[in-house]
Amino acid sequence: MEVHAVILAGGRGERFWPLSRSDAPKQMLRLVGEETLLGATLERVAHRVAGECTWIIAGEDLRPAVDRLNLSLPPAQYLWEPIGRNTAAAIGAAVERIGAQPGRALLVLPSDHLVPDVAAFWSAVDRGLALLRAGEPIVTFGLRPLYPETGYGYIERGEALGAADGAYRIRRFHEKPDAERADAYVRSGTCLWNSGIFLFDAAAMAGLLRLHLPLMAPVLDRLRSDLVAGDEQEAWNRYFQDATAVSIDHGVMEKTERVAVLEAGFEWTDLGNWTSLGDRLPGDGAGNRVRGEVLALDSTDCVLYSGEGGLLAVLGVDDLIVVRVGDATLVCPRARAQEVRRLVQEGKIDARLRRFF
Amino acid sequence: MEVHAVILAGGRGERFWPLSRSDAPKQMLRLVGEETLLGATLERVAHRVAGECTWIIAGEDLRPAVDRLNLSLPPAQYLWEPIGRNTAAAIGAAVERIGAQPGRALLVLPSDHLVPDVAAFWSAVDRGLALLRAGEPIVTFGLRPLYPETGYGYIERGEALGAADGAYRIRRFHEKPDAERADAYVRSGTCLWNSGIFLFDAAAMAGLLRLHLPLMAPVLDRLRSDLVAGDEQEAWNRYFQDATAVSIDHGVMEKTERVAVLEAGFEWTDLGNWTSLGDRLPGDGAGNRVRGEVLALDSTDCVLYSGEGGLLAVLGVDDLIVVRVGDATLVCPRARAQEVRRLVQEGKIDARLRRFF
Repeated sequence: MEVHAVILAGGRGERFWPLSRSDAPKQMLRLVGEETLLGATLERVAHRVAGECTWIIAGEDLRPAVDRLNLSLPPAQYLWEPIGRNTAAAIGAAVERIGAQPGRALLVLPSDHLVPDVAAFWSAVDRGLALLRAGEPIVTFGLRPLYPETGYGYIERGEALGAADGAYRIRRFHEKPDAERADAYVRSGTCLWNSGIFLFDAAAMAGLLRLHLPLMAPVLDRLRSDLVAGDEQEAWNRYFQDATAVSIDHGVMEKTERVAVLEAGFEWTDLGNWTSLGDRLPGDGAGNRVRGEVLALDSTDCVLYSGEGGLLAVLGVDDLIVVRVGDATLVCPRARAQEVRRLVQEGKIDARLRRFF
Repeated sequence: MEVHAVILAGGRGERFWPLSRSDAPKQMLRLVGEETLLGATLERVAHRVAGECTWIIAGEDLRPAVDRLNLSLPPAQYLWEPIGRNTAAAIGAAVERIGAQPGRALLVLPSDHLVPDVAAFWSAVDRGLALLRAGEPIVTFGLRPLYPETGYGYIERGEALGAADGAYRIRRFHEKPDAERADAYVRSGTCLWNSGIFLFDAAAMAGLLRLHLPLMAPVLDRLRSDLVAGDEQEAWNRYFQDATAVSIDHGVMEKTERVAVLEAGFEWTDLGNWTSLGDRLPGDGAGNRVRGEVLALDSTDCVLYSGEGGLLAVLGVDDLIVVRVGDATLVCPRARAQEVRRLVQEGKIDARLRRFF
C-alpha cells in the first residue's frame, strides 16, 4: 500500500507556559532531548515515508515558527489552515489534497508526542497496514496503560479481530477520566490509552466523513473541484471557512462501527503538562525533578525548570511546579498542572500582560 | 557642636536576593520609592550636615556600585575598607580620619534603613546633641516597638536621665530575640527597638575604643600617625589588616557604663527581608503584596515581586514569597524569609552558580 503520513501540528500546548508561547507552542519546543517534538515526529516518519508523501498541517499563524525550525520538508508538503477547524476538517483537507484513492493509506500523527523507539513504532504501523489490506477502514493505536493517567483518553476494546494479533474491534472511546474512573479503566484490563495516532484507507475516510458529517459533504466536494481548478490557497480559504469544527473522534470514529484498535508495543508519552514532563526530568535525590540551573534547599517533590541563562532558587517548598523561562516565571502546585492554561487564558485577555503569552 | 555624619554602607543585604547581588547590595536598591536607601540616607544627612562633614564607609569591592549611583559627595569623603572588619574598626577609622577633638560630634547611620520624616529625625538628633553637651559620651536612638519584631535588636532602658525628656541610661542590649522573647520585650514597656543609629563625642569614643579593645589601641595610634605621615591608602591597608573584627555594640557600647538611649519619635524601619518589604507593597485584595507585572489566580497572602520587563504568574499558592528579578527567581515560604541568605551562602560556594549571587 502507498503510505502517506499526515502530521497534525496545530496544537497550542498552553499547559507548558511559560516555555510555550503563542509563537512557540509545545510541538516546537525541545521538551526532552535536543530535538523539537515536531522535528522528532518528522524524523520518525522519514524513517519509512518519503518527503513527497509526508504532510504537515498547522495554523497559518504558526508558519513563521515552523519556518524557523528549518525542517527538511519541501514547501508544497505544508497545509496551512487559515482558521482552526479541529481535526475532522484537517483530516478531510489532507484526504482531498493527497487524493482519496482506494488502497492509499494515510497515517495520522500528533506532532507533540514522544515515541522514542522508531523501529517498534513502524512494526506496529506495519501490523495496522495489514489490517487495512484485510479490509479495515480505520485502525487506531492503543497502548496498554502503565498507570491510571487522567490526562489521556482511553479506548475500550471489544472482540478480537482474526486478521492480526492484538487487533480488536472498539467497544467505546472514553474521554479523559477523573482519577477514580482512570483507576477502573486500568483495572478493567480491556482499556487502552488512546495514542491519537491512527491509520485509514483514504477512499474509506473520504466516504465516512461525508456519511457521518453530512454538512461537510458539499464542502469537501467543493474543495475537491477547487483543488483541481487551480488557486490552492483560495481553495483552503473557502474550505476552512465553511468546514464543521469537530474532532475526528467525535465526528467520525465514534459513529463508525468498523473502527479497529491495535494494541501497539511502542513506548508512547503525551507530555501533557509540567507534572508529566517532570517525570522525565532527572531527579536530585530529594524527589525534585530538575532541569537547568537550580538551587533547592529543604525542598522536596517539586518540578524545577530553569531555562537557559538563569537561576531558579527554592527554599522550604514541597510539591510545587516552578518554571523560570526568559522573562516569565510560573509557580503552581504539582496537582494543578492542568490549570496552567487558565493563567494563559487570563493573561491573553489582559492587554497589559498579553505579550508574555 | 560640630557634627559629622558617618554612613555605614558596608552591608550585603543577602536576604533580598535575587534583587540584591554582590555588586548591588540592599543599600543600593530602590526597595521603596525612587531613591536608593543609601541615596535617601545621604539626603537625610544633607538636610543639616555639609558635604565636607559627611562620610561614607564601605568595602572597596562596592566602589564601582557606589560610583554608579553618582552621589553628590566629593571623592575625599569616602573611606573604602580594603577588608571588612566589622563596625568597631569602621568607627575607629572614622574617628581618626575626622579627628578626635573634644566637642566634635559624630552621628553614625546605617545606610539601609527607612526614615521617612527628616524633620522628626533631626529633632531627635538635636535632643541627642544636647545630651552630648551635657557630658554624655554616647547616645543611642531607640524606638518604641510597634509589634514584637524578631528581626530587630532591643535596648532595655534603665533610669531616666535628668538632662532631657525621654533620655535613659541603658540597662542592657538584647540581641534579635525569638518570638516569645520579642513579645516579652514589647510587653515590658521598657524595651525599645535598637535603631542602629547613634551619636558620640569623638574624643570620648577615641578613648573608649582604646580602653575596651586594648588590642586596637596601638593599631589606632599607628593609624593616627600614618594619616599624618602621608599615604592615606597605605594607612588604611595597615589599619584594617590589623584591626580587631568586632561590632561597636559588643566591643564598646555593652562594656561602657555611660551609654544613653534616647526614645526617638521618628518613624523607622529596617527592611530586613522580603516579608517585611512585602508589608510596604500594595495589596491586591486577596492578601497578596504585589510589585511589577503579576498574574495571581487562587492565591493568597503571598509576596509577589516581579522586576522590570518580566511577568510572574502564580496559581493556587498561599503564603509564599516569589521574586523574579532579571535572570533569577526565588521561591520560599513567607515564614522563612530570614533564611534566604542561606541560599546566597550556598550559591556563592558553588562555582557553577556564583555568577547569580
